Amino acid sequence: MTTISNDVVTLVNVFTVAPERQQELVDMLIEATEATMKNVPGFVSANIHKSLDGKRVVNYAQWRTAEDFEAMLKDPDALTHMGPIKELAEFDAHLYEVVESISK
Amino acid sequence: MTTISNDVVTLVNVFTVAPERQQELVDMLIEATEATMKNVPGFVSANIHKSLDGKRVVNYAQWRTAEDFEAMLKDPDALTHMGPIKELAEFDAHLYEVVESISK
Repeated sequence: MTTISNDVVTLVNVFTVAPERQQELVDMLIEATEATMKNVPGFVSANIHKSLDGKRVVNYAQWRTAEDFEAMLKDPDALTHMGPIKELAEFDAHLYEVVESISK
Repeated sequence: MTTISNDVVTLVNVFTVAPERQQELVDMLIEATEATMKNVPGFVSANIHKSLDGKRVVNYAQWRTAEDFEAMLKDPDALTHMGPIKELAEFDAHLYEVVESISK
């Protein structure tokens, strides 16, 4: 269970994908997270979302620090798992802080 | 406090903004949520994020159902609040379901 929080740094990665390959992308992201990302120092959580219109996949992920995330980008195991994903979909990844949470 | 969950439908709205106007956009989204969205039937939560590179703002929002969200899009009060925001930034909004949450 993931709580939106500023105790971590948040990665929002938005993948643009052909609807007929959306599920394949979801499966690859889950596999890469379970096999590799989960064991990278500083990983906190990954939350895979698929859009109802089939056109997007979002990974809402949390890392302990921005430095942990940057180090992962140079990790050979992580890069091996991200390679095929990059061939399947364009993505727009940024690190975020939570500014405000408003609930009913 | 917002928990990522499939008990709701999730809206991820990614705004592309000029870094010098990022804070202005954040302030407008918070104001629109407090003044209007919060009172729209079916609203559950809004979580405003700003990217560390200044280029994006993400609203990770939750609605009771997709129908509630679609009805909001026709609400005159909501439209009035969204007008100036649309002039400030491009946005990419989709509804999502949570497929998988993986924590360390």
